[in-house]
Amino acid sequence: MDCEVLAIGSELLMGQVVDTNSSWIGERLAAAGIACYHQTKVGDNHARIVAALRVALGRAGAVICCGGLGPTQDDITREAIAEVMGVPMRRDPDVEVALAERFKGRDFPPTNYKQADVPIGASIIRPVIGTAPGLICPVRVPVLGPAGEKVIYAVPGVPAEMREMVDGAVVADLVRRSGERATIRSRFLRVWGVPESKVAQIVAPRLEALEGSGTTIAFLASAIEGVRVRVTTRAVGDDAEAKAEHALDAEEAQLRSLLGEAVGGVGTEGLELVVGRSLVRAGLRLAVAESLTGGMVGARLTSVPGASDWFAGGVVAYGSDVKRSLLGVGPGPVVSEQAAKQMALGVAHLLGADVGLSLTGVAGPGTQDDQPAGTVFVGLAGLPADRAATGPDALAVRATRLTLRGQRPLVREQATTQALDYLRRALG
Amino acid sequence: MDCEVLAIGSELLMGQVVDTNSSWIGERLAAAGIACYHQTKVGDNHARIVAALRVALGRAGAVICCGGLGPTQDDITREAIAEVMGVPMRRDPDVEVALAERFKGRDFPPTNYKQADVPIGASIIRPVIGTAPGLICPVRVPVLGPAGEKVIYAVPGVPAEMREMVDGAVVADLVRRSGERATIRSRFLRVWGVPESKVAQIVAPRLEALEGSGTTIAFLASAIEGVRVRVTTRAVGDDAEAKAEHALDAEEAQLRSLLGEAVGGVGTEGLELVVGRSLVRAGLRLAVAESLTGGMVGARLTSVPGASDWFAGGVVAYGSDVKRSLLGVGPGPVVSEQAAKQMALGVAHLLGADVGLSLTGVAGPGTQDDQPAGTVFVGLAGLPADRAATGPDALAVRATRLTLRGQRPLVREQATTQALDYLRRALG
Repeated sequence: MDCEVLAIGSELLMGQVVDTNSSWIGERLAAAGIACYHQTKVGDNHARIVAALRVALGRAGAVICCGGLGPTQDDITREAIAEVMGVPMRRDPDVEVALAERFKGRDFPPTNYKQADVPIGASIIRPVIGTAPGLICPVRVPVLGPAGEKVIYAVPGVPAEMREMVDGAVVADLVRRSGERATIRSRFLRVWGVPESKVAQIVAPRLEALEGSGTTIAFLASAIEGVRVRVTTRAVGDDAEAKAEHALDAEEAQLRSLLGEAVGGVGTEGLELVVGRSLVRAGLRLAVAESLTGGMVGARLTSVPGASDWFAGGVVAYGSDVKRSLLGVGPGPVVSEQAAKQMALGVAHLLGADVGLSLTGVAGPGTQDDQPAGTVFVGLAGLPADRAATGPDALAVRATRLTLRGQRPLVREQATTQALDYLRRALG
Repeated sequence: MDCEVLAIGSELLMGQVVDTNSSWIGERLAAAGIACYHQTKVGDNHARIVAALRVALGRAGAVICCGGLGPTQDDITREAIAEVMGVPMRRDPDVEVALAERFKGRDFPPTNYKQADVPIGASIIRPVIGTAPGLICPVRVPVLGPAGEKVIYAVPGVPAEMREMVDGAVVADLVRRSGERATIRSRFLRVWGVPESKVAQIVAPRLEALEGSGTTIAFLASAIEGVRVRVTTRAVGDDAEAKAEHALDAEEAQLRSLLGEAVGGVGTEGLELVVGRSLVRAGLRLAVAESLTGGMVGARLTSVPGASDWFAGGVVAYGSDVKRSLLGVGPGPVVSEQAAKQMALGVAHLLGADVGLSLTGVAGPGTQDDQPAGTVFVGLAGLPADRAATGPDALAVRATRLTLRGQRPLVREQATTQALDYLRRALG
């Protein structure tokens, strides 16, 4: 059994409200092992809702309609469903009584009783939070697709009311109709420091190996989030959950062996969380000296609650004079490996931190110190690994050069991510 | 001419990513006077993308496809469009050269050249930010609906890359095809320091006055952007552009008289740009001391190209020890008006800046110094206005207390915006 989602409301099409309901329903359907291949938005127009329902029922065994169940003139979902079912409406006395109870003593426009109208043959999902009942509407559609009974569910557009009904009555009814115990599970591996196309090349053997299996791999990339490699698997049977987890564990192991240290975390673990965890483990406190990023590295690190356990703070050395007076950058260009090293050492010293991370570079537009936009140096001072190499007394320091493409905002975002990844890899 | 939106990506159906692109495109189409009656999401499946394109072209004159233009194996939009067009693909030599240029000197998997594949008959939208070109694909669909030429646009799923192409080539091409000599122009007034509901109340008389005219007012609010009051006007005829500009000028004047100093700028002018302009005008250089925001204020200020003319840098004093040792915060709680004043003075002194801005507070979760999450103090030192009041030698200082609602990310964003607005209003 597969199920489509039809979100109803002109405000969704005009971008005045973002349709988050469909995404949420899609996630719940996936968790229940019910495939969802199409989600559609349509406005408050009777003919178009009817046509969209027919298109959806021509493809899928079930449709969840979201929105248009309220008491006002533009709430026309009930009527559209009745037309698709080919039945008239009846007024449900129980719902009528429940509505009257609910609004007792309040100014209650009689149009509210519209919410008690039900297409004949449909059953009712009683609301707990709101006033609008949901509907389960069986439809015979011999001409549109495979013959037999299909189903339309109608739920309110108010997210809390919708969630209550989908997680309760709707998913239960779908699972009952599908007669199959199935589950769909996903896991994200977080990859940093490798571009999306390169990640795809590295894991290409796995995509081939998985061809035709119940497991798939996909990629999502952004300058802030890095590359997320999504593994999705579908399992059936009484032990579907356990089988799915097992398949994900096995595929994660395969991907980790291919991607190595490029994998920094799983799920929602951002780079800042992974770095913080490594610092806590090593018992180190970090300070950051930023130039072209102006505070973006500090902002990301402090997005983690409890960051004060491992983050002392930093210096935004935007003017060259600040780099020299506060951080001890010597004569010569401030966009250089030498300056990055001095900044990393300087900020660790100034803030009394164990480790100093620094960035200096050219965000653009335009050049600086004869360096083109996108040239960035990242410095790192005080790591135990380096200290062992240079002797216990000297504060060891290393640096790297990045060459970044894109306009100013993208250069700054990439510099932030890559500096954090440089630290992550150095912490091991 | 009406236009549908088809968002492509299995992650959209499974709720792992919320499809905000369709909403954004819907808003832009509405602003351009182009009707959008359906928006659909479909997964990374060739047959289903082809079928969804055919359904959409059966209903509408144009379809914007969003996503699936990247270099990896699951990017299959190009192939699906070629099938709907009934044409083979060609490899575009110009795009190939542009891709090679872009990745010169980097490890560049040959699969990236897939992005140079173009269905024969399609024209190319060159990317500015990203690497994936967009496509304009004319389709002859005599059997599906009204005969004649329809069109499929393909744009990337990365929001910034998508926006650049939709706002540029796609809307222009749609307007040209629709053949009407009309223009729709919008102007945004940027309002800070006043909540959206209050802004709506203040400008309510204008909404009434504009009823039935070709001009409308709408509100968009966010913690970072403040409240944007959008004035949209539609004009027709040969002098449509001039008429529209005139209507916008007139309405801007009306709104400014109602909103007063709450209006900080127009269009894309962020708070950081307005503050920078005021500092340049006053010949002042700023330094910032941040605690709970961890660098977010500095990051926003340095998003403005040329910020080094008026921004020296700052100190991220995340640990209390850093506030005391570097910024001279005395004994007593660090979340206090007193500490905010000391931080503002301290950072101006330390960096040799004219003006110091500071933030100290509780981002949450949990309390600090017995203050609940959302308590923030903002300090401001060295303004000429204050100096005149206290005598020329003393560095005058003021502070304010904010009480912010919401969770950690929202508290930090609001604190950043309100601190910048405090500075904006003080600079006058």
